[in-house]
Amino acid sequence: MGHKRVYLDYNATTPLHPEVRKEMAEAMEMFGNPSSMHSYGREARANVEHARKTVAEFIGAHEDELVFVGSGSEANNTVLSLFACASNLCIPGFKGRQGIITTKIEHPCVLETSQCLMHRGSQVRLLDVDRYGRIDMEQLKEYLDDHIGLVSVMTANNEIGTIQEIREISRLAHEHGALMHTDAVQAVGKMPIDVNDLEVDFLTMSAHKIYGPKGIGALYVRKDTPYCPFIRGGHQERGRRAGTENTLGILGLARAVEMRRVEMDDEVRRLAEMKQVLKDGIAASIDEVEFNGHPEHSMSNTLNVSFPGAEGEAILLYLDLEGIAVSTGSACASGSLDPSHVLLATGSSAEQAHGSIRISMGRETTMDDIRYVLDVLPRVIEKIRNMSTAYVKGGAHAAAE
Amino acid sequence: MGHKRVYLDYNATTPLHPEVRKEMAEAMEMFGNPSSMHSYGREARANVEHARKTVAEFIGAHEDELVFVGSGSEANNTVLSLFACASNLCIPGFKGRQGIITTKIEHPCVLETSQCLMHRGSQVRLLDVDRYGRIDMEQLKEYLDDHIGLVSVMTANNEIGTIQEIREISRLAHEHGALMHTDAVQAVGKMPIDVNDLEVDFLTMSAHKIYGPKGIGALYVRKDTPYCPFIRGGHQERGRRAGTENTLGILGLARAVEMRRVEMDDEVRRLAEMKQVLKDGIAASIDEVEFNGHPEHSMSNTLNVSFPGAEGEAILLYLDLEGIAVSTGSACASGSLDPSHVLLATGSSAEQAHGSIRISMGRETTMDDIRYVLDVLPRVIEKIRNMSTAYVKGGAHAAAE
Ligand SMILES: Cc1ncc(COP(=O)(O)O)c(C=O)c1O
Ligand SMILES: Cc1ncc(COP(=O)(O)O)c(C=O)c1O
Repeated sequence: MGHKRVYLDYNATTPLHPEVRKEMAEAMEMFGNPSSMHSYGREARANVEHARKTVAEFIGAHEDELVFVGSGSEANNTVLSLFACASNLCIPGFKGRQGIITTKIEHPCVLETSQCLMHRGSQVRLLDVDRYGRIDMEQLKEYLDDHIGLVSVMTANNEIGTIQEIREISRLAHEHGALMHTDAVQAVGKMPIDVNDLEVDFLTMSAHKIYGPKGIGALYVRKDTPYCPFIRGGHQERGRRAGTENTLGILGLARAVEMRRVEMDDEVRRLAEMKQVLKDGIAASIDEVEFNGHPEHSMSNTLNVSFPGAEGEAILLYLDLEGIAVSTGSACASGSLDPSHVLLATGSSAEQAHGSIRISMGRETTMDDIRYVLDVLPRVIEKIRNMSTAYVKGGAHAAAE
Repeated sequence: MGHKRVYLDYNATTPLHPEVRKEMAEAMEMFGNPSSMHSYGREARANVEHARKTVAEFIGAHEDELVFVGSGSEANNTVLSLFACASNLCIPGFKGRQGIITTKIEHPCVLETSQCLMHRGSQVRLLDVDRYGRIDMEQLKEYLDDHIGLVSVMTANNEIGTIQEIREISRLAHEHGALMHTDAVQAVGKMPIDVNDLEVDFLTMSAHKIYGPKGIGALYVRKDTPYCPFIRGGHQERGRRAGTENTLGILGLARAVEMRRVEMDDEVRRLAEMKQVLKDGIAASIDEVEFNGHPEHSMSNTLNVSFPGAEGEAILLYLDLEGIAVSTGSACASGSLDPSHVLLATGSSAEQAHGSIRISMGRETTMDDIRYVLDVLPRVIEKIRNMSTAYVKGGAHAAAE
């Protein structure tokens, strides 16, 4: 009580940017249905289309290529489900190409959808990753055959921050006649993202990771790419996604994007510095730590670290008592006691995976917050390790090599 | 310019209730991800679960039976798509029962999804309706056989306001081993709706029709009913709908529902009176009008009327110039020049259907607004009819009999 509150779980979700809050509070006056022909409707339509242009431009897309959807998860489900449809002639050019290649470290909304498609008879191949979470291009080449319709590889991983070589992957996919999707939910707004640089056909983004509201996302669909809607019905979004448009959410997303354009570059530099201080501080003050993710190709805001001999959940709860919010892996998997599928894919032992936390920083994070963490965390780890009878100094670590 | 603005398109969408606006403005402070284990997450989780209880109770459901989704369209797609899954063992008890019975007057999100399922091999049967828009129970009995897994009939029609005998339909469905879904997007909040009275297994609702925000809805799924998620991924909504919860939208929906509980009954009485005044006024001041929808079993806020010899789109635009917002059929179909599928199903001629407008009232509608419409509308119809060379007084009407 009364102590500092430090939020370090920006990869799970972010607070609304004050400008977004203002925009949305004002936009609450505007209530027309963008599909209505009268003045109320036309006003809403104009605002939605203006927002579409803003968001599209931020990722180098044309406004016609952007579909507003209800979440990052919906966008990912939409893209993958195209290939369930392929068998059914909804996207005729892709008949016979129902196969999907994705990775072992994708978000559950990609992995579980893939699994469902597998049950329905689609072929799904999961790429391995190295100890830093990067995919193996040779394995990708090997997996790419005439049955593959889609390659889906996330731009940046939510748990460990590792960034993939998306352009190179896109080129390989295209060489083999497959389409390319990237889940850029974590990447957009944290690094420059341009759909033409990345050469992708589909790209997923979500507002609530970039100081916008929850429940709104966008799917980039390159012009002339085979597509059929996932949610069917009205002619909204040019027939690409039915349901009355979430006007408030759309305006919030656009404002969030505008603020990212202004703030991102400086912030990335600031966060990279703080990440270094945090990393060095942890390494200096706590024995036997293991940093997860790629040492260079990694998001500047994300630090994932394992403390053998200390359960991640216990660390999270003790830190929470001190006002510090971090997570173990992804929020979507929390509540489950399974070790992180991402860390297991990088070759971590179950024990090491269990002993990991993710610290993810954002625009309100200060060096003062980092110092507070460096003050509290060593004590917390020591306390937990002391309570854990199973922990023998050096033992767990030695066993993991 | 400077004249009155009268919104009479509440079936398309509604303004936020001032209390909803207040609630949402306050809730913008709360930003935790309900899946996060720390205090920010727990706060969001508690608020979402409180909202779930509020919304569930409003329709007589248990909170465990309510799934928050991104729109009414998504809820309807979710239910219908279960039966695409049935063929694939996701809901094993229903193998062989992939057939769906629905009606010719459903919302496009039901009709187009049905069509897609048909293309994928499911059997879909569309019930006819009588001239008032009510289904034929004998035809329903005839269509119900061992292959039917689902009956989906909307509670109240968005275009003509006609209300169906949902309980009776549910009983017939259940007698034949099928599940029962009702799209109650237009009904919830405009009449008492209780899932146990209606004996339905699934019910769809949407916030933006009841003074809540756009982009949030709820799906009622009766306890122990076969189900599999439409958007797959995280464990959100107990594994029934992936995607970070739209916390702001959910809280807005709950507040909207709370206000409905307080305001609905009086409002329905008030609207019924105004509808009568409107109807009598139109009948008295304009020649050859035709009222669509059921004379009794109809929503008190909805009046659909045909003016042979006057195009609906023209009426809409002329009224818009006078500050009055109405619609031709549903907002989802606007932009298309096809005559309303609902009016065609009731036996209207294409010409009569084309000459129809929907006036839908709501909580801010006043008797003064109605008087204004009764002042403007006759002039508008006369002007349009005079411009239309094709219109011969009495001719169109006579041809339609
Ligand atoms: C009867 C009916 N069903 C479904 C919907 C779709 O709801 P939503 O706009 O939330 O997708 C609407 C309105 O748009 C409707 O009137
Ligand atoms: C990499 C990644 N993909 C997809 C998602 C899902 O996005 P949403 O929460 O908008 O459904 C998330 C976060 O939740 C994520 O981190």
